[in-house]
Amino acid sequence: MIDAVSFENNTLGYLDQRLLPLKEEYVRTKSYQDAIGAIKTLAVRGAPLIGIVAGYTVMLGLNSFDGEKETFPDYFKKLIAEVEASRPTAVNLFFATARMKEVYDTHYASSSLEELFGKMLVAARKIHNDEIANCDNMARHGVELIRQDFAEILKTRKLNVLTHCNTGTLATGGSGTALGVIKHAWNEGLIEKVITAESRPLLQGLRLTAWELEQENIPFLSISDSSSAFLMQKGMIDFGIVGADRIAANGDTANKIGTFAHAVSAERHGLPYYIAAPVSTIDISISDGTQIPIEERDADELRTIFGTQVAMPSTPVLNYAFDVTPAEYIRGIVTDKKAVVGNYVSELQKLID
Amino acid sequence: MIDAVSFENNTLGYLDQRLLPLKEEYVRTKSYQDAIGAIKTLAVRGAPLIGIVAGYTVMLGLNSFDGEKETFPDYFKKLIAEVEASRPTAVNLFFATARMKEVYDTHYASSSLEELFGKMLVAARKIHNDEIANCDNMARHGVELIRQDFAEILKTRKLNVLTHCNTGTLATGGSGTALGVIKHAWNEGLIEKVITAESRPLLQGLRLTAWELEQENIPFLSISDSSSAFLMQKGMIDFGIVGADRIAANGDTANKIGTFAHAVSAERHGLPYYIAAPVSTIDISISDGTQIPIEERDADELRTIFGTQVAMPSTPVLNYAFDVTPAEYIRGIVTDKKAVVGNYVSELQKLID
Repeated sequence: MIDAVSFENNTLGYLDQRLLPLKEEYVRTKSYQDAIGAIKTLAVRGAPLIGIVAGYTVMLGLNSFDGEKETFPDYFKKLIAEVEASRPTAVNLFFATARMKEVYDTHYASSSLEELFGKMLVAARKIHNDEIANCDNMARHGVELIRQDFAEILKTRKLNVLTHCNTGTLATGGSGTALGVIKHAWNEGLIEKVITAESRPLLQGLRLTAWELEQENIPFLSISDSSSAFLMQKGMIDFGIVGADRIAANGDTANKIGTFAHAVSAERHGLPYYIAAPVSTIDISISDGTQIPIEERDADELRTIFGTQVAMPSTPVLNYAFDVTPAEYIRGIVTDKKAVVGNYVSELQKLID
Repeated sequence: MIDAVSFENNTLGYLDQRLLPLKEEYVRTKSYQDAIGAIKTLAVRGAPLIGIVAGYTVMLGLNSFDGEKETFPDYFKKLIAEVEASRPTAVNLFFATARMKEVYDTHYASSSLEELFGKMLVAARKIHNDEIANCDNMARHGVELIRQDFAEILKTRKLNVLTHCNTGTLATGGSGTALGVIKHAWNEGLIEKVITAESRPLLQGLRLTAWELEQENIPFLSISDSSSAFLMQKGMIDFGIVGADRIAANGDTANKIGTFAHAVSAERHGLPYYIAAPVSTIDISISDGTQIPIEERDADELRTIFGTQVAMPSTPVLNYAFDVTPAEYIRGIVTDKKAVVGNYVSELQKLID
């Protein structure tokens, strides 16, 4: 398996995903500022992986603390705030910092700093191990749902699946969310071919998903994002499955820009469209998608590509990094606990309880 | 006005659109092979402009003929075949060669080669002048239709319009097809802002349409292609208008890949979606869109961007250059003769008759 992230000897290791697939550079750092930079600049990306890195980033921050115990609370508060500011749309990041804060709240008073840091390392590692287990569970539930929904078609042929962005090992540290389901479905002989949309502006589909699929020897075709509708019209896609950055209580899902465009086309062509994401992605405090803050990223993400300028610096750009797919477009939400279909409001609430 | 193409002193001049907007390189050539190369490599592009360049390319081919009159027919036949092979999806190209062949058929027997070439030059220039007039007429009919369709909204505010690819001066030699309508509508005070989709893989929207709009001082925002659906969901787009590479007898329209994706989203959000194209784009011999040949272009158009490699050379790519938007998605087809709405089968036939 690809080693997307590690934490050994108080050192965070990660594959710089901006350079993939052309260059495999494994970065090692003891600096929490560097780690925050890696999240900000998308050197590490993907909702679950961001959570894992956030946990380890807090550990790096702790390791560089050299004050007395009584000055630690202020330091810790500032550290958490810095980590949380690195990627405001990623709920997994807040989930990770919440777990670290919980350990702090429970054990600060009764422990030495050394003991406290030890307990927090256990918590950070658990975030990582949980994501690996989550992927395996999602894969299982997802494949089961696909087998049900395509029972008739699967009697005669395999399926062509569309995916967007990267939701594999590089995004999760495990087998993946949507791509984990796809890999598992391929292993079970359900998949003919994967159609991977390139995912402008940063091309995670063309670069990262293609790279993972090639490593796994799964047949695939890369397409421009705007081709998916035409391929659906031509009958070349049977269903779509994508990840999520944040899921509202009613099932509305924020994910990489382009997710909604594929969903609209899938609906128009009568094709099921699934979301795969761990329960931690569900933000039950947000009632619907209109309340999810959507990050607008730098215009130069469109105006330059890998350092090559393609548009004038003066060209005005609107660069939403995410879009929101309303629940009505979603056939099912595959989580690590179960695959949810039907009434998302009640079903998602049950998962959280 | 931008000088997209010229023919003076037996020399074809054209702006190499692959280098825009970063570099304005005006190429001059007397070689018909070079001119064919310019069509093939998209140095010149846009359905009407391809027609203009095709006419001038035939002239360059004639000028390099140095045989006797009796060997000319074979030479001419081969020349036409070469020109027609340069871009098989572009019906304007075939329309242009047909006009040149017609002059040949009518005058070959009765004229000296010098006289014949003179008449063919008149025909080539007429293709160019006709396109300029076509644009002005399309703009007029298009604005009229928009005024009708948005009569209520226009009482209180201006409109935001989505367009795709480049359909302006760079595509037509005139003010443009879809972009000509937009420019005209802007001049008449109907437009708030243009949303221009970047149009992967070759980014004609981000590079060329943005460049033209900047030159015209029309407010605009460039977006990734897959953002249009989300902007429609957010109410940031009132309608879409795009060009056409070929229109079948029933109104089904082949145009730059991504056109159909925007159309599906426009339909889902109840927004009108228009095609603007000269009557010459209508191929009445083709009954519907399924019969339009769709060019698959080189995988490296996605794998490399302006010479910068972004994906592995081994990455398999499916690169349809065009898609087909079924007539049911199209609110109106704006031509130089009139804007057609309703029953395309009968209305388009009337335009041709």
